Amino acid sequence: MSRTIKLAVIPGDGIGPEVIAEAVKVLDAATASENVKFEKTPFSLGAARFLETGDVLTAEDLAAIAAHDAILLGAVGGVPGDPRLANANIERGLLLGLRFSLDHYVNLRPTVLFPGVPSPLSAPGNVDFVVIREGTEGPYVGNGGAIRQGTPNEVANEVSVNTAFGVERVVRYAFGVAAGRARKNLTLVHKTNVLVFAGSLWQRTVNALASEFPEVTVDYLHVDAATIFLVSNPSRLDVIVTDNLFGDILTDLAAAISGGIGLAASGNINPEGRFPSMFEPVHGSAPDIAGQQLADPTAAILSVALMLDHFGLTDAAARVNAAVTADVVARTTTGSASGPRSTASVGDAIVGLLTLE
Amino acid sequence: MSRTIKLAVIPGDGIGPEVIAEAVKVLDAATASENVKFEKTPFSLGAARFLETGDVLTAEDLAAIAAHDAILLGAVGGVPGDPRLANANIERGLLLGLRFSLDHYVNLRPTVLFPGVPSPLSAPGNVDFVVIREGTEGPYVGNGGAIRQGTPNEVANEVSVNTAFGVERVVRYAFGVAAGRARKNLTLVHKTNVLVFAGSLWQRTVNALASEFPEVTVDYLHVDAATIFLVSNPSRLDVIVTDNLFGDILTDLAAAISGGIGLAASGNINPEGRFPSMFEPVHGSAPDIAGQQLADPTAAILSVALMLDHFGLTDAAARVNAAVTADVVARTTTGSASGPRSTASVGDAIVGLLTLE
Ligand SMILES: CC(C)[C@H](C(=O)O)[C@@H](O)C(=O)O
Ligand SMILES: CC(C)[C@H](C(=O)O)[C@@H](O)C(=O)O
Repeated sequence: MSRTIKLAVIPGDGIGPEVIAEAVKVLDAATASENVKFEKTPFSLGAARFLETGDVLTAEDLAAIAAHDAILLGAVGGVPGDPRLANANIERGLLLGLRFSLDHYVNLRPTVLFPGVPSPLSAPGNVDFVVIREGTEGPYVGNGGAIRQGTPNEVANEVSVNTAFGVERVVRYAFGVAAGRARKNLTLVHKTNVLVFAGSLWQRTVNALASEFPEVTVDYLHVDAATIFLVSNPSRLDVIVTDNLFGDILTDLAAAISGGIGLAASGNINPEGRFPSMFEPVHGSAPDIAGQQLADPTAAILSVALMLDHFGLTDAAARVNAAVTADVVARTTTGSASGPRSTASVGDAIVGLLTLE
Repeated sequence: MSRTIKLAVIPGDGIGPEVIAEAVKVLDAATASENVKFEKTPFSLGAARFLETGDVLTAEDLAAIAAHDAILLGAVGGVPGDPRLANANIERGLLLGLRFSLDHYVNLRPTVLFPGVPSPLSAPGNVDFVVIREGTEGPYVGNGGAIRQGTPNEVANEVSVNTAFGVERVVRYAFGVAAGRARKNLTLVHKTNVLVFAGSLWQRTVNALASEFPEVTVDYLHVDAATIFLVSNPSRLDVIVTDNLFGDILTDLAAAISGGIGLAASGNINPEGRFPSMFEPVHGSAPDIAGQQLADPTAAILSVALMLDHFGLTDAAARVNAAVTADVVARTTTGSASGPRSTASVGDAIVGLLTLE
């Protein structure tokens, strides 16, 4: 009897549909030999849908998506400056709407510099770390407000909310990830010398859980110092755990030093499985290059590998990762002599490399 | 008749006294031929003073310092992990105490990659930009709190406070700086798609002032994207204006790509001169290398140049900058064959290069 996984597919806007087509292609190929079937339901959400209907994410959308086992998302967001989208904030309404509604408290963002991939760093070393970004708290909760807006006496506040419940569960998850890795090192990143209340909660939580994971060594870096580390000594990092905003900042920087946002995958995970987890490339919808087969689908394909891992399909995940690695190496050795490849041909190449296993 | 400038000198902890000794040496040499006298009053503040007296920054300290025209600060902070300092948070009590009490709303942090200085970036290009970090608002205001601390039901909040008054004045200053530079470009960095209330205030303020500075071109970058920019295309940046926390993060990253924190200077400025402005290297007290003449005084010396500029002593400032540039070039061309230089010999070398003008 074969296992069926119900997958909600949200291609989204811009390059989203193109990269998702390749991700699905690789998913199907990688699982063809497995005793599992991904049953896909497409959802038309994003800026285009908003412009048609005025809806970003309705209660019905959410209920329908929540009835799935996982979500694969391309990218959402319209053309910057489009006046019809001025107050829509699709990314916030949709991406953050899903992350918060589906309790994606672990935002998992691995950073690996594949062999041969150019980095803007002259001596990056062996970059292989993972950022575990809290996904449902911190400055992202939307508890902001303003008074006297538009006047010289305006005051605009943003509240970062951090709970023992919320911090404990993501720090525990991060310790688990660190314990399962070779170096078993966990670095808390925060700004405890300024954000003393939130920082104290994070630091005390890490200290308290450390005794449950004696095999894991624990470090601390202020977020400002962490950016220095990421460019001067990234190979020393193993697992980082941090809050929602610091994680947002550090993972873009991490992507930049490891081949760019075209290779950065992410999982928004609800570890208990009460809600479907969501897998998405870190990049945006890049409307300027949409529809031209110019986008690199690799980040979306690596997000599929994270999804396969999430479902315990570790063989299939490893095959996808190996195929991507092989493709990336081939790109850098053949160079641009053959010209840039289309989005579909990158997907095809990775599928081709899958079957070599 | 010669002008007298009353300078409060706070050497501080760790390497602070060593780098300040060289900064003062260069200050004296650079102004010897000018019709100005810096009258220096030393203040013993920092971790060492706290351990002696239990005080970080008293009302008397503050009143005495405020009676000066400017402040030159080395670095403050004790040995990390010293249990006697566990709840002291000297950096916050002293550095932030001074910045907030003395209304240092402009935190000016230039980033220049000097010729020949190694950068961790393989192709940094011509890096020459300045970050103008707001210094008296945002997540740094200390409006945090916690309930049920230490229990599983703890909630710890941090409030970012942003006012039209506070944002307008620093954005106006930044436009002025941009207007005075060759490229005349201003980039607002924020996270308007998530921190919608604060972000909206910042964005509206920039939009409103843009019409007063028609010669300045204006850009916007989300803070996460800004970190990518800083490592992939830093030479495109001219002037960045941003909030207190984003500015903290970006300026450490900026220092890292431009030769490291040993070269990063800063001014905490009260432009109206109601309070003394404060000049300090961005680096910390580095207690591990203190007292051994191992610290690089260059950042402190460049902070002196910022101070000279602040007082309109542009010739003296230019001489210091030129001497530092010459010294930095000499370092990189002679290499380490001569071995590392002591803190004092770097100061002496820069003084020597001053007299060549
Ligand atoms: C689009 C934006 C809301 C989002 C975030 O800030 O989380 C993005 O930057 C990310 O990192 O996934
Ligand atoms: C020491 C710390 C409070 C300070 C800050 O966060 O502003 C430092 O990092 C800086 O950038 O000057």
